[in-house]
Amino acid sequence: MRETVNQLGEFGLIHRIREWLGSRQKVPKGTVGIGDDAAVLIPPEGYDLLITTDSMIEERHFLREAFLPKEVGRRAMVQNISDVGAMGGIPYSATISLCLPEGFFIEDVIGLYEGFLEELLPFEAPIVGGNITAGATLEIHITMLGIVERGKAIRRSGAKDGDAILVTGFPGQAALGLTLLKNGYFQYKGLIDAYLRPKHRAIEARKLFEADILHAMIDISDGLLGDLRHICEESKVGAMVMVDRLPRTEEMLKASRELRVDLYKTILGPSDDYEILFTLDKKDVDVAKNILREEGLNVSTIGEITAREGIVLRSDKKELYWEMKGWDHFNTRAMLIKTTSVQASKKEKSSLP
Amino acid sequence: MRETVNQLGEFGLIHRIREWLGSRQKVPKGTVGIGDDAAVLIPPEGYDLLITTDSMIEERHFLREAFLPKEVGRRAMVQNISDVGAMGGIPYSATISLCLPEGFFIEDVIGLYEGFLEELLPFEAPIVGGNITAGATLEIHITMLGIVERGKAIRRSGAKDGDAILVTGFPGQAALGLTLLKNGYFQYKGLIDAYLRPKHRAIEARKLFEADILHAMIDISDGLLGDLRHICEESKVGAMVMVDRLPRTEEMLKASRELRVDLYKTILGPSDDYEILFTLDKKDVDVAKNILREEGLNVSTIGEITAREGIVLRSDKKELYWEMKGWDHFNTRAMLIKTTSVQASKKEKSSLP
Repeated sequence: MRETVNQLGEFGLIHRIREWLGSRQKVPKGTVGIGDDAAVLIPPEGYDLLITTDSMIEERHFLREAFLPKEVGRRAMVQNISDVGAMGGIPYSATISLCLPEGFFIEDVIGLYEGFLEELLPFEAPIVGGNITAGATLEIHITMLGIVERGKAIRRSGAKDGDAILVTGFPGQAALGLTLLKNGYFQYKGLIDAYLRPKHRAIEARKLFEADILHAMIDISDGLLGDLRHICEESKVGAMVMVDRLPRTEEMLKASRELRVDLYKTILGPSDDYEILFTLDKKDVDVAKNILREEGLNVSTIGEITAREGIVLRSDKKELYWEMKGWDHFNTRAMLIKTTSVQASKKEKSSLP
Repeated sequence: MRETVNQLGEFGLIHRIREWLGSRQKVPKGTVGIGDDAAVLIPPEGYDLLITTDSMIEERHFLREAFLPKEVGRRAMVQNISDVGAMGGIPYSATISLCLPEGFFIEDVIGLYEGFLEELLPFEAPIVGGNITAGATLEIHITMLGIVERGKAIRRSGAKDGDAILVTGFPGQAALGLTLLKNGYFQYKGLIDAYLRPKHRAIEARKLFEADILHAMIDISDGLLGDLRHICEESKVGAMVMVDRLPRTEEMLKASRELRVDLYKTILGPSDDYEILFTLDKKDVDVAKNILREEGLNVSTIGEITAREGIVLRSDKKELYWEMKGWDHFNTRAMLIKTTSVQASKKEKSSLP
């Protein structure tokens, strides 16, 4: 019979995790990991420290039956690595706070940790601590530390009037993948994979950082438009987005037709893609594109930063002022009302393709 | 009508918290707090970094109706400050991940933050980030960073054969307070207060640290015996505890009689007291006692570290080998069985007073 967390107990489980991790991750000299009141780290000199925290909660952020434990673990870690990457930083170490249902299998806990480590190992970033409690549903709360050269973190607040706005990959793929998965369209393997196994862009973001061309950067975990709004608010600027320039694949077009969903709304709205959106001087667009294409990553110029606040969507020379929100855990109803009204005005004006 | 989190929405709430915090906490120059993908900190040179994470979950760790939001906030922060203090460190900054039920009032969120800040302000440690999701019950997940002089953190693993074992305050008070509260004995104000408003000993622990006399230290959040066991395991030693020396107040004696609970089991078992237990060379006991008494904190020598592994409880020259576990979130049944059998052998041998 498979062992469960309540058979092993909290301390037994911590002991097991600590042993399992011991041989699998490198911990720098002087570092104290799991097994004391707090972990001890020696931050490298000349670097600032980044800290971010993100949670993944069963049913709310993922459906347990759709994922292997390892995929859940990877997903939770990707979220956090993505945030460090979006500052231009390098993941440094992580703590993990788990809530586990009482009958949860030990081998599935190890599965979660396999996922965490798979994402952390390329950065040689160890798991140095955490906490385990019993709970009704599976929850993963990660706090990730990163490092970045002193004073050099890329902020949301650095966008300037006239900057080009670029985005990596194909935002919206994960949202389509989720809908396809829910409705049984399993043939759309690329999109479903984009949802099940999202990728962070921390390595590519770091290459851009090293080229010293970035003005502002964000990962689009709140949706392309929601996160562009964050940049605009923090930078006290506006933006114009050319909807015809939004990147899309054949598979996305086909799936959106089959599902009868508005592809542009999907691309612009909440989707678990973890692509990065960044702004830079127009003269540096080609440098950025060359860097990312060398990394094998698609990149698109989708618009520009404006002095006038607010976000304008433009298509065929028609303009539509859009104030759609990104993913909001409490206010989803308000969001839906807003998108519906945009839908309506879209039909009236037929301003969107 | 009082505003709720779903009326305000996730981003509205983050904005509100950010504004509220802005005027109330100091953020060092160069630090980037809430409002970007990650916070940016400039760690002071010559210090190691401490990191710890602890969670407080409604129903499991506290009953919402028994606490004001501010008390819940303080409690959650005290837990984490306590862990940093138990390493000899100074709290440096915190991130807070909240799960909030959908109808939760905004003023109660602010109440939680009042509690967080009240505990952080003496250390000038800012809240630099966090995360908010909707959830079925209130959950608070804090990650606390601390600093400690390079290479000087006090570990659990430093206890040596012959060390004296000391403990601060009166462990068991909070456990009694909780039982009194549940059963309506509201006249035991001191004990109930110990449960509702626990205190960390980070400042006192730091004074001991500065005297350079500590071998091992831990906060007793898993119970006195559970945490002594952690020290023994990490230090590969054993311990002898003189049960007659365990600190107790008149109020504790009276309450344990009224409740008909075993006072020694209560003192040794899980209790949310956040006192510290530490070991040092016997010659330094008086130095430690003077330091703590100057701080107005009770301190007791309760036993000594032994080369032989395992924990022995001694009273009236009789010995009892005890392997009781501390608080274990999954394995509480096993713990109860163990304590019951100890109870039984206690009666047989009448080895405990």
